[in-house]
Amino acid sequence: MDLDTVDKFIVTPWDVEGDIDYTKLIKKFGVSPLEEKTLNRLKMLACGELHTLLRRGVFFSHRDLNWLMDEYEKGNKFYLYTGRGPSGNIHLGHLVPWILTKWLQDKFGVEFIFQLTDDEKFYFSKNLKLDEANKFAHDNMLDVMALGFDPKLTRFIINSEHAGVMYPLAAKVAKRITFSTAKAVFGFKNDSNVGQIFYTAMQSVPAFIKSVEAGKNIPCLIPLGIDQDPHFRVSRDIMVKLGYYKPAILHSRFLPGLKENGKMSASDQDSAIFTGDSKKQVIKKIGRAFTGGRETLQEQKDKGGRPEICNVYQYFYMLFEDDDNALEERKRKCLNGELLCGECKKELAKRINVFLERHSEEKEKAKKIKDELLF
Amino acid sequence: MDLDTVDKFIVTPWDVEGDIDYTKLIKKFGVSPLEEKTLNRLKMLACGELHTLLRRGVFFSHRDLNWLMDEYEKGNKFYLYTGRGPSGNIHLGHLVPWILTKWLQDKFGVEFIFQLTDDEKFYFSKNLKLDEANKFAHDNMLDVMALGFDPKLTRFIINSEHAGVMYPLAAKVAKRITFSTAKAVFGFKNDSNVGQIFYTAMQSVPAFIKSVEAGKNIPCLIPLGIDQDPHFRVSRDIMVKLGYYKPAILHSRFLPGLKENGKMSASDQDSAIFTGDSKKQVIKKIGRAFTGGRETLQEQKDKGGRPEICNVYQYFYMLFEDDDNALEERKRKCLNGELLCGECKKELAKRINVFLERHSEEKEKAKKIKDELLF
Repeated sequence: MDLDTVDKFIVTPWDVEGDIDYTKLIKKFGVSPLEEKTLNRLKMLACGELHTLLRRGVFFSHRDLNWLMDEYEKGNKFYLYTGRGPSGNIHLGHLVPWILTKWLQDKFGVEFIFQLTDDEKFYFSKNLKLDEANKFAHDNMLDVMALGFDPKLTRFIINSEHAGVMYPLAAKVAKRITFSTAKAVFGFKNDSNVGQIFYTAMQSVPAFIKSVEAGKNIPCLIPLGIDQDPHFRVSRDIMVKLGYYKPAILHSRFLPGLKENGKMSASDQDSAIFTGDSKKQVIKKIGRAFTGGRETLQEQKDKGGRPEICNVYQYFYMLFEDDDNALEERKRKCLNGELLCGECKKELAKRINVFLERHSEEKEKAKKIKDELLF
Repeated sequence: MDLDTVDKFIVTPWDVEGDIDYTKLIKKFGVSPLEEKTLNRLKMLACGELHTLLRRGVFFSHRDLNWLMDEYEKGNKFYLYTGRGPSGNIHLGHLVPWILTKWLQDKFGVEFIFQLTDDEKFYFSKNLKLDEANKFAHDNMLDVMALGFDPKLTRFIINSEHAGVMYPLAAKVAKRITFSTAKAVFGFKNDSNVGQIFYTAMQSVPAFIKSVEAGKNIPCLIPLGIDQDPHFRVSRDIMVKLGYYKPAILHSRFLPGLKENGKMSASDQDSAIFTGDSKKQVIKKIGRAFTGGRETLQEQKDKGGRPEICNVYQYFYMLFEDDDNALEERKRKCLNGELLCGECKKELAKRINVFLERHSEEKEKAKKIKDELLF
């Protein structure tokens, strides 16, 4: 796909490229910026706490969050839904929306449906077989549960396995999506396959499946990477026509990759930290990560670093430093030239390894309960 | 849809219009005429018998029937597959391919899978709900069983109910169908919905599902109305790429409607005899049917009738006179002006009513076993 000639970036469910201007994206996608007033309301409902990812604007826009909170205040509890296209192993970037989802489940004590779209990855990947995508789905499930979701409130729906329930519901959505709409939103071409064209209907299903099960409407909140929003831009209005609520959505921006272009790529293992990486691999990858450091030690000491372009800083900012004061102090020292990249990287690698060690243990434990969590 | 400007007829899975030239259709669809040599071979394998519908050319073309017979002779038994889009009640025209299928099951003692495409009818009908199509599916099943299929060898697969098994297989076909292929074969437009575009993949599944179940390739023979051929024109080559056999196909022409234009229309109840019609309705509808009769009694006696344009004659020819000599005699008497339309219609109505009485009884009996026959 070509970069937008004006915007110089692309964000679609299957392609994220260029230097993303999130402010422009808010306009382009027609979503609402996540304003302080809305965040404060959410904070109140969450008993005075606001997760780092919300506090720092990693989640930066939404759809109908205020409506969701209205309903919540009326006693109409929501459920959470997010998902993953299982085309490979999980890296830290994938965890961003899931970490917020876990926090929301904790704070609001709500049910959570996680969708694994193995059909999607099969349709959109040249060489991936459906059973390969399905194997990744089962492994990726363990990464989700490793984050500490409540097994009593969490279920996994896998498109290729639960099509018995999903397909008749997807059909009702599909009937109301014309090819021209799908083409306009997703950029389909003549060589797009008919599975790709149909697929968005499958992704819509978990956003209203609880209402179908319950026989009454239940609000749904979907925390997701902004690239996935187009699916719901298409299907939200259709859900209303089918008699269900529109789901509310919270959009996150992307964790940058480790390299200078900031892109995470499944084909470049060094561009991201995967949850299965060894301690050594983490130290090596973070050691090579792109930072805002200067050419020479002296220049760094004189001019200070540039956290605004530093991927290592972004990892602290988004995932590995919850303490706002400590983060501020790290930034100050960097700007002053007191904190050098080597030291900063060492600390980040240490924290990532602590996280991953625990993650691996939890992932192992999740194996025992995994099958009970399937839809 | 517009009629082909050259051919003056249309045959697609969703639209059959105009005065169909079956010889042209054979060329257009790239299928093989059902030649005497092939029919004789089939007759030999069927222990010297050939069903009326084959003997009289109602089934007029095929794909790979000789390959199927090669396999049969090697001891590689085939299974039968046909189906129905359940958008309403069953009329006599629907029965044509099923009657041959029943004969094939009897003669070859083979398994039979009948598909009910309630999703298709939902996607392609403006006002039909999915659960309405599904209700027709369950009633239509009874009409199929009323024809006498062996319950031990017969199973029904309903797309909206058995998507758990079907969707992952349909996905493998869908990945290999581009939009441009679907558009070229089915004539999709920008306002086609994405369910319609995906649907053909669902129709392909029963043609290889026995091979999936058995873990080895089993030949499949599909007797169907020629209008359904385009689905398999698209999917047969894909099945080979997926490692399965191409199904063989037998194509039937259409039973004409009762009116002059020969069209059967679900929206015009008088254009067809439905299996639920009362004796009175049958007598009334046949009484009004278009024939090759003349303007006046005298003219009829002088010039004779015109069986070649007579719908009543076609009903004898295709369904209600198996005895070739008796049919010949009826034709001769008509041409001579000895047999008048009123008498001919009376006899046809009588035979239809005998058939329908038994059909209703068998349909009632089928209710008891229906649910056991679901996939």
